[in-house]
Amino acid sequence: MNPTISAFKTSPDRGRGLARDMSVRWALEEVGQPYDVRLVTFAEMKEEAHLAVHPFGQIPTYEEDDLALFESGAIVLHIAERYAGLLPADANARSRAIAWMFAALATVQPPIVEHGMASLFERDKPWFADRLAGLEQAVRQRLRQLSDRLGDAEWLDGDFSAGDLQMVAVLRRLGSSGILPDYPNLAAYVVRAEARPAFQRAFADQLAVFNAASSGG
Amino acid sequence: MNPTISAFKTSPDRGRGLARDMSVRWALEEVGQPYDVRLVTFAEMKEEAHLAVHPFGQIPTYEEDDLALFESGAIVLHIAERYAGLLPADANARSRAIAWMFAALATVQPPIVEHGMASLFERDKPWFADRLAGLEQAVRQRLRQLSDRLGDAEWLDGDFSAGDLQMVAVLRRLGSSGILPDYPNLAAYVVRAEARPAFQRAFADQLAVFNAASSGG
Repeated sequence: MNPTISAFKTSPDRGRGLARDMSVRWALEEVGQPYDVRLVTFAEMKEEAHLAVHPFGQIPTYEEDDLALFESGAIVLHIAERYAGLLPADANARSRAIAWMFAALATVQPPIVEHGMASLFERDKPWFADRLAGLEQAVRQRLRQLSDRLGDAEWLDGDFSAGDLQMVAVLRRLGSSGILPDYPNLAAYVVRAEARPAFQRAFADQLAVFNAASSGG
Repeated sequence: MNPTISAFKTSPDRGRGLARDMSVRWALEEVGQPYDVRLVTFAEMKEEAHLAVHPFGQIPTYEEDDLALFESGAIVLHIAERYAGLLPADANARSRAIAWMFAALATVQPPIVEHGMASLFERDKPWFADRLAGLEQAVRQRLRQLSDRLGDAEWLDGDFSAGDLQMVAVLRRLGSSGILPDYPNLAAYVVRAEARPAFQRAFADQLAVFNAASSGG
């Protein structure tokens, strides 16, 4: 039985691969594991059946035999542990790759999401300009530190790993903010990751879902 | 050789166990592994030597033989994988415990930290009341969902695990906000965790560091 993941029936990102099923799709493509997709509407995400798998009523979920998981980072790590290709064999290198996953989600992501959310939802508030400047500073601090660490390396620590996958998924959320190009090695890092065939397949698949939904169907 | 962690020489939380070394100390106490502590000042955290271990210039770090790790969640997971006592033996239960770690850090923590930061640093801004109300709503949504899932269980999924440890560490950051008591089963869950001897030892140790620093020394 293939694992089944859940994804938005109509993604609010309009198929740009910024919804959190994208990193799970990408991980499954990297390890070469076929999967099925269960599409859910916003209403269905808040229903009992979905909440039984995802206590916070979000996507993605991951179901495989008698295992049900939620939280994209946890699902990517599970895939990386279950199938070969996303974690180094050496135990120390493996722990470091996992550290980059946590760093992406717990340290780099929060200011990026805050900045993105404020840009979307606080544009007409009187405090918008003042607050956005502070948020952009917080994002830039993290990007500068990450850029310093990456230097001219191809990936964060040796070969491409689940840590890079998670970090790139987070950096891609900067989207149209115009901030990333100020850090050329990080911009090139994201382009390099997006050029991977596994990323391309995952991206095409999530885009096809959005296109099917928006064309009526 | 015992592992060495880093912690604030003078924690800004004034010894309330809210700095991120606390969850690492707690994990080490749960598995019964002695450790050494390297105390760093804010200035030292931004110096080359510390940045070599922690690219974002924070605490805690974890050094053990030739492994150097950063990011508290990653360190707790490493400890849980290296020593017995914080992850179930069953593979599926183990993946679910790890999912709760990611949920704590990536889903429950962000609104709590945003709410805490705004309470501290935006109190004199003209938008404070308006924004704080929105942030509190976001915190309450997550707490309600978590409360629904926990129900009257003792821990989130079977025995106490690294998932509970990380979730409680995040919930404790609600501190003096006065929000947690509105979710009695979550408040009791935190009290239950804090009563564990391993938590008590870790708490006493970080408090002793703060007391030593603030008494001059």
